[in-house]
Amino acid sequence: MYKKLFIPGPVDVSQDILDAFATPMIGHRTKDIIALQERISKNLQKLFYTDNTIILSTSSGTGLMEGAIRSFTAKRAVVFSVGAFGNRWAKLAETNAVPFDKVEVEWGNPTLPEVIDEYLATGKYDVFTVTHNETTTGIMNPVEAIAEVRKKYPDVLWLVDAVSSMGGAKIEVDKLGIDVCITSTQKCLGLPPGMSCCSVTERAIEHGKQVKNRGFYFDILNLYKFVKEKPYQYPTTPSIPHMFALDKQLNRIMNEEGLEVRFARHETMAKMVRKWAIDNGFEILGREGYLSNTVTTIKNTKEISIGDLNKRLGERGYMISNGYGALKDKTFRIAHMADRKPEDLQKLLDILTEEIDK
Amino acid sequence: MYKKLFIPGPVDVSQDILDAFATPMIGHRTKDIIALQERISKNLQKLFYTDNTIILSTSSGTGLMEGAIRSFTAKRAVVFSVGAFGNRWAKLAETNAVPFDKVEVEWGNPTLPEVIDEYLATGKYDVFTVTHNETTTGIMNPVEAIAEVRKKYPDVLWLVDAVSSMGGAKIEVDKLGIDVCITSTQKCLGLPPGMSCCSVTERAIEHGKQVKNRGFYFDILNLYKFVKEKPYQYPTTPSIPHMFALDKQLNRIMNEEGLEVRFARHETMAKMVRKWAIDNGFEILGREGYLSNTVTTIKNTKEISIGDLNKRLGERGYMISNGYGALKDKTFRIAHMADRKPEDLQKLLDILTEEIDK
Repeated sequence: MYKKLFIPGPVDVSQDILDAFATPMIGHRTKDIIALQERISKNLQKLFYTDNTIILSTSSGTGLMEGAIRSFTAKRAVVFSVGAFGNRWAKLAETNAVPFDKVEVEWGNPTLPEVIDEYLATGKYDVFTVTHNETTTGIMNPVEAIAEVRKKYPDVLWLVDAVSSMGGAKIEVDKLGIDVCITSTQKCLGLPPGMSCCSVTERAIEHGKQVKNRGFYFDILNLYKFVKEKPYQYPTTPSIPHMFALDKQLNRIMNEEGLEVRFARHETMAKMVRKWAIDNGFEILGREGYLSNTVTTIKNTKEISIGDLNKRLGERGYMISNGYGALKDKTFRIAHMADRKPEDLQKLLDILTEEIDK
Repeated sequence: MYKKLFIPGPVDVSQDILDAFATPMIGHRTKDIIALQERISKNLQKLFYTDNTIILSTSSGTGLMEGAIRSFTAKRAVVFSVGAFGNRWAKLAETNAVPFDKVEVEWGNPTLPEVIDEYLATGKYDVFTVTHNETTTGIMNPVEAIAEVRKKYPDVLWLVDAVSSMGGAKIEVDKLGIDVCITSTQKCLGLPPGMSCCSVTERAIEHGKQVKNRGFYFDILNLYKFVKEKPYQYPTTPSIPHMFALDKQLNRIMNEEGLEVRFARHETMAKMVRKWAIDNGFEILGREGYLSNTVTTIKNTKEISIGDLNKRLGERGYMISNGYGALKDKTFRIAHMADRKPEDLQKLLDILTEEIDK
């Protein structure tokens, strides 16, 4: 029995988008695939609000995050972490012997611009990373305010993990000045997992040239070179089924729903969940003013068994997420992303209201 | 217009296997996915003739090759290359600052056991790599004979690229003593690109513990730990659609066609292509006795325009491959792998006979 997924990825995927996965294969060095990849890149540029080069990767978002911190850190990176996926940047630096410092807040808090200012002012760093949306805590970081502070340090490269928000919230990459912005298919884009993508600035590529040992599969400079010169091809055989589906889904997002409508729908759903939580005697983990539009982390103030709750929800065809890591059982999470409709979410909330007191 | 693909990957995929890609999503930390991944692993163990641990990776085969040479080389690797994909092992070592030597033969020749003996006898190496099947030259290396010689050096880890042969030729991993055997979905397995897999020995994992900076996404030790301890889960979200399809296709390969029948079908098709080439006045590039059962590289002795030939074939709904790299136009390649039937291949050969003299 398939359950409606209210977890922060994988998300439910529309049947016609799933059907695009069943398209017969084409060669990966053909005119047809070049046209397909060009179309995807141009639509992703619109989604990212950028003229920067788009790179696709057959991997989860973690793969491109690893490629980015490894390819672009020549001196030292500073990782601003607000949860488990912020800590992942640190893990990726550590396992690749990339020099780094980690600045972690108490979970539930955002990365504040003044903290970034303080660290970048030391002059120690050539790269800093920010998690746009942290699925463990339900925090959406203030990238507009961060962009303001960052103007003082134009030479420091800015890498952003937008894995769980791109397509669900407006992130104006060029206006903000983000050098590398990363997302993947199984969150707000409304596709199955298996592909990730990023935008990258030319100045990041120039900077990366001084970095040795960038590896191969996730060497962003090598990927960039292929995309620019071939053009729109990749060094290794990519997941062609994901490309068929991504092409179709981007067309729908851009031309059927429209970006502004899509972002507003995510905001509406976030407000519904927050209101439901408060109305039912819970509290929200994240600090007011920095809450995610794509996933809400709710404090389990009533100390209900989240495992049992999810089991009962499962019997009714729904699934939410327990808290992550140290927040397991202390919090639970409801995702409201991708193609989810407010009326579907309302059904879940109605069922939750019945089930939490059982 | 879709063309029948006689290129060495991507291959044509049966419609019911493509349809499995359109299965609705499930969570990547659920009992359902654990059962799915366990089933896939057990069938892959049968396909690989191994009891070793199976690891899946959402990437092309190159990704796991990079992970293997980086994760397991503590001292120095020796790469035995017979073509472009042999050279890729060297590139992967080089871009990851893994110490290595490359031993390359003139293209069209195999890796001979006595050459391996000579290099391993120096005691300089803790890892050696062999390409089982080289799609650029149509060479299938003599892994049985190599396994004999290798018995003299039991402590040296043996990594094998079986990307373009696993599922099309018998590779008895445990009998041969291969430590890491790698393949991917878009060749003989008859699936679209986007996923790769490998078998790995416990002794390789033990050896890898002394290697620093193994990275994260392709750190085979970390992947192994997850698969063993979780079990059957992965550190990052995998391509679930590929898993649905791989599960279905492995069931078909094992239980409907049967491995021996499948291998024999590949051999039959290889013989058909070789005979066609000779009968039509061409020569085979590879050395007799070491020819691939999955792809044939034919010398363009008649100096026909391969580009024009492929254009004419395209108009008739077929596609073959030009030569690779330096062999472009000097050779052309016909792949005969995956679910391709001899009668389909015969149709291509009949059309080729008509078109080569135009």
